[in-house]
Amino acid sequence: MDPRPIGVFDSGLGGLTALRELRRLLPGEELIYFGDTGRVPYGGRSREIILRYARQDVAFLRSFDPKAIIIACGTVSANALTELSAENDLPIFGVVGPAAQAAAATTRNGKVGLIGTAASIRSGAYEREIAQLAPRLEVFSRPCPLFVPLVENGRFRPGDQVVELVAEEYLQPLRSAGVDTLVLGCTHYPLLRDVVGQVMGPQVTLIDTGAVCAVHAARALEAQGLLARRETGQRRYFVSDSTQDFARLAGIFLGEDVEGSVERIEIEKY
Amino acid sequence: MDPRPIGVFDSGLGGLTALRELRRLLPGEELIYFGDTGRVPYGGRSREIILRYARQDVAFLRSFDPKAIIIACGTVSANALTELSAENDLPIFGVVGPAAQAAAATTRNGKVGLIGTAASIRSGAYEREIAQLAPRLEVFSRPCPLFVPLVENGRFRPGDQVVELVAEEYLQPLRSAGVDTLVLGCTHYPLLRDVVGQVMGPQVTLIDTGAVCAVHAARALEAQGLLARRETGQRRYFVSDSTQDFARLAGIFLGEDVEGSVERIEIEKY
Repeated sequence: MDPRPIGVFDSGLGGLTALRELRRLLPGEELIYFGDTGRVPYGGRSREIILRYARQDVAFLRSFDPKAIIIACGTVSANALTELSAENDLPIFGVVGPAAQAAAATTRNGKVGLIGTAASIRSGAYEREIAQLAPRLEVFSRPCPLFVPLVENGRFRPGDQVVELVAEEYLQPLRSAGVDTLVLGCTHYPLLRDVVGQVMGPQVTLIDTGAVCAVHAARALEAQGLLARRETGQRRYFVSDSTQDFARLAGIFLGEDVEGSVERIEIEKY
Repeated sequence: MDPRPIGVFDSGLGGLTALRELRRLLPGEELIYFGDTGRVPYGGRSREIILRYARQDVAFLRSFDPKAIIIACGTVSANALTELSAENDLPIFGVVGPAAQAAAATTRNGKVGLIGTAASIRSGAYEREIAQLAPRLEVFSRPCPLFVPLVENGRFRPGDQVVELVAEEYLQPLRSAGVDTLVLGCTHYPLLRDVVGQVMGPQVTLIDTGAVCAVHAARALEAQGLLARRETGQRRYFVSDSTQDFARLAGIFLGEDVEGSVERIEIEKY
């Protein structure tokens, strides 16, 4: 039993897809969320900058003495998990491994699609992980650089012509390739689930990386006897820019009012 | 006569629209450009963060002992010019004033359109400036939050369906309002000139804020006897993320190879 909190971070809102699942699976855990809204998006930046920002994000979360940290960000998981794990003496969970496992377990025809930010796709991390688990799978990958700016601007709903056009452009080659499984390799993308589902069709299974990572982390913490085992855990949210914009979108997304639980910090100091 | 360089900065690529004009008007000046590509875009961030980043940008440029600084960024000009001018004992030029003057001098029917980032429009700075110059003008303003992410992703050319759809959505109300002048209130937007022109039609005059700011600054420096009066001035480029991506897009935009002249710096240290 370990009463300490679990830290969760992302470049912005996307990691809430992992947090929502964690809240459902582990309602008794205290969760500390950090969204680096003052520097979002990460996915178009270089590996070096991503690593620098991620180190600051982890340093901030470590100030709460967490028992584990979840990198609820595809871009950071794909580019910096190795370094962050080596540098920190606590369990750090990324989204790439669990997503690759889920894809390998899901596909029937051996054709897996992968979408992510430019930095995630460029890293090749998902492909390497899938190749190790199931060398015979074919992976078709596509960077989707406009998806995060669209989601961060609150534009992710079906009927939004711009989002639908961008989704059609990005996904059409994957649909043509005949994938039966699509890894949403960025934690922002589950907010686009309906739009992506429209383009891909009902026969394609979408893998929500935030959610599968949350499941993986919950199981690992349980197995190691690290859960808190209290009734209800507190949830606190921190951002590096205005709390209002975040609270509004996060509230809609999580289906609860988070207004009073969001605080602002200066991430550059960590 | 003053041989010192002129500093120019923006959140990313957009300020090159001012730099290009400066280079044309003042070929003998040494120009130092900084693009904060590690933290772009600025336009969705809060005023407080914009001011903090802008102070660092100015501090970096001041390390070259410039004779003047040009804020080639609509978002920073609209949100931080007053503070930056008060805090620095050298001429600092923003884009808002010159753009407002150009709009007032251009409109025939008294209806001026204004587009900019969310932070620029929210500031009300352009409207205040226009109201002072020409109180009877009607200003119709629209935030265009997706334009900067589109441009920074290299998507600004006519024929790009996504850009055309976004432009139609943002600009249609301004076209309907019957404006005869449109202020491109962000220095990224001149890269979208052809797309914006298509939507607005040939009867609407587009005001390129980067270019009018460059003209204004060149005249002011000339009037104060601060020009360098050499044949050709060196141009150096600094960014806060990868130099390659910047060099590629900047090279296309400026029509010259800038590869060897781009250096990377850590802006957080300033």
